[in-house]
Amino acid sequence: MKVLLVKLRKAVALVERPLLLYIRFGRSLRQADHVKRYCLERERERERAMAEVSNKQVILRDYVVKALPKESDLCVINTATIKLKLPAETDQPADAVTSSKVQLVLLKNLYLSCDPYQRLLMESVQGLSVPSMSSYTPGSTIHGYGVAKVLDSRNPDLKAGDLVWGTTNWEEYSLITTPQVLFKIHHTDIPLSYYTGILGMPGMTAYVGFYEICSPKKGEYVFISAAAGAVGQLVGQFAKLMGCYVVGSAGSNEKVDLLKNKFGFDEAFNYKEENDLNVALKRYFPEGIDIYFENVGGKTLDAVLLNMRLHGRISGCGMISQYNLDKPEGVINLMQLIYKRIRFHGFSVPDHYHLYPKFLDFMLPHIRQGKIVYVEDIVEGLENGPAALVGLFKGRNFGRQVVVVSHD
Amino acid sequence: MKVLLVKLRKAVALVERPLLLYIRFGRSLRQADHVKRYCLERERERERAMAEVSNKQVILRDYVVKALPKESDLCVINTATIKLKLPAETDQPADAVTSSKVQLVLLKNLYLSCDPYQRLLMESVQGLSVPSMSSYTPGSTIHGYGVAKVLDSRNPDLKAGDLVWGTTNWEEYSLITTPQVLFKIHHTDIPLSYYTGILGMPGMTAYVGFYEICSPKKGEYVFISAAAGAVGQLVGQFAKLMGCYVVGSAGSNEKVDLLKNKFGFDEAFNYKEENDLNVALKRYFPEGIDIYFENVGGKTLDAVLLNMRLHGRISGCGMISQYNLDKPEGVINLMQLIYKRIRFHGFSVPDHYHLYPKFLDFMLPHIRQGKIVYVEDIVEGLENGPAALVGLFKGRNFGRQVVVVSHD
Repeated sequence: MKVLLVKLRKAVALVERPLLLYIRFGRSLRQADHVKRYCLERERERERAMAEVSNKQVILRDYVVKALPKESDLCVINTATIKLKLPAETDQPADAVTSSKVQLVLLKNLYLSCDPYQRLLMESVQGLSVPSMSSYTPGSTIHGYGVAKVLDSRNPDLKAGDLVWGTTNWEEYSLITTPQVLFKIHHTDIPLSYYTGILGMPGMTAYVGFYEICSPKKGEYVFISAAAGAVGQLVGQFAKLMGCYVVGSAGSNEKVDLLKNKFGFDEAFNYKEENDLNVALKRYFPEGIDIYFENVGGKTLDAVLLNMRLHGRISGCGMISQYNLDKPEGVINLMQLIYKRIRFHGFSVPDHYHLYPKFLDFMLPHIRQGKIVYVEDIVEGLENGPAALVGLFKGRNFGRQVVVVSHD
Repeated sequence: MKVLLVKLRKAVALVERPLLLYIRFGRSLRQADHVKRYCLERERERERAMAEVSNKQVILRDYVVKALPKESDLCVINTATIKLKLPAETDQPADAVTSSKVQLVLLKNLYLSCDPYQRLLMESVQGLSVPSMSSYTPGSTIHGYGVAKVLDSRNPDLKAGDLVWGTTNWEEYSLITTPQVLFKIHHTDIPLSYYTGILGMPGMTAYVGFYEICSPKKGEYVFISAAAGAVGQLVGQFAKLMGCYVVGSAGSNEKVDLLKNKFGFDEAFNYKEENDLNVALKRYFPEGIDIYFENVGGKTLDAVLLNMRLHGRISGCGMISQYNLDKPEGVINLMQLIYKRIRFHGFSVPDHYHLYPKFLDFMLPHIRQGKIVYVEDIVEGLENGPAALVGLFKGRNFGRQVVVVSHD
């Protein structure tokens, strides 16, 4: 019994001090525990975030040299992974890309747009000198315009949860090192996909190319090639708002119908059904053309030159008919530029992005009031992106071609 | 005797009254006689003036279609005559040309200039819409720029004896129905022939095409084709005054020497000795071209496009290499206009003549101080005009080609 009492006393002595401590500092201890649990939870969350998830990507196999791009020139891969959190600034290796000077932004891509200029980037092009216009690298993800959600950001103007449009990569998640090519989306009463088109780069292209480059005046005669595309459909509507006479050309009767009955063009024609574009233009423009919004180049440009009026203006936006040729078609009627004192002004919209706020002020009321309409051709799934993109060069799209990567 | 006295009295009576009248009104009679003599003299002078004198003319035989013009496409005739006084307004037949509403001006032509644009007028060209740019009529006198003396004028701003430059006909005397194409010459301390060149249309063309169309900036890289011609030699000097780096191309080593040693171009080359214009331009412009003053078109334009810099400007003045071809050469590198956001602006100097006073204020001190020099290639005699004019298209002229019709 004595032995038992001694053991019990020892046992009590063993717990006595901790117990006293517990009683004395109980409150503090409970707090410390809470902090510890909190830290553990955050650590687990961080680990989950830092865990690499699969990142589907569209890759250019090799340069497409002077040929129509095929779906097989691109491939969709599922082997890449990405961490859904930027590394802590102290963790990062001190290389050029992840240097703390680079304001990394991590995006979840929602919508990607298919644009004709992307064909040019499938070749090795030099001298374009804007970040969004650098040639693709064979074996790497292609880039383009898109709408995305910010998952993490080291840029002070962007935070997790923000929606943006701008230059991103054709993949599910993108680590952007040049956040200056991203524009924050403030107005979400408009369909988000519109920021790949009417409220994004093509919208700005139409706006700058028409209002800034063409110096339009009420009553002038306006011709638009590739008029049913992402840019052309808007230029035509801008020209109608300005009080111009507007004719568009497109590559199918369905598109011609769209131009006349949806976008309000005065006239439209299917260039594939015209034997002589010069004759076609003379039919629609007996008085000649004041403004030509150039999207196609080649034979169309040659025919337009013959039909331009004195002091006409040509807004050089693109020459899609030439992108896939072994050698561009020679344009022979350039003397008309001098005879008629015409201004041909090539432009690229990134030079004009400082006008974006002014553009939004103009566009938003028109869209909300239904005074400017927009037609999109939406494809679901990044895996269907290559077909959508190469389809552009066969005129398969019906309105602005968009690829949905994720709806939210 | 009585009979004799009667006869004498009758005879005295016959002269008495006139004699008395003569004595009484002698002074008035002498005045009337003076007036009569004066009127007779003026009448004789008017008759001399109204007498038709021979008027040598240069005639276009027939349209020159897509070929190098030959001297035999033009002919000099001596059969035409002209009255060296305008008909009195009341005398004139009420037709369109001599209607009193038309402010006729009669000119004695002194100097005529040979200009590349005249080749275009040897074909049936439409749509140029400036009086000086209407096609020639086969069988009729050709027109062009010249310096002339006013012999008679129904225009309130011009009087006999005035010197003018502007659009006139290739003949000794011209009846001008559009005096708005004539500019009065106020500064005669400069050689009169300069008003066909440095102080006339080519000077204005160089001035407008460089300063107004090209928006030049100090330090920019400037290339000028046909640089030893009437316009090119001035553009190069303007560009040097602006602090640009200037290279010109020409068609002979003598002209290249002129560009470098007389006009102060930084570099110049003989395009006929270059196998590859693209290579030549890369040699002279390793950094590319900011401003191209386009005088020749075709292959040169194609090579220039490849070498233009971002936001470059091309002043479309002429395309002399294309004027005589069966079909213009196709220009294939137009996509560069878009890649590099280039502005190609065709212009024609008559659109800018309102700037002539500003131009004179700029040019006169530079000429007087020898800061701008000018080289002319002067041919004596209207009969040598056709050879001088067609020689222009073979590059025979050495500087500004002028034809002297009369020295005063």
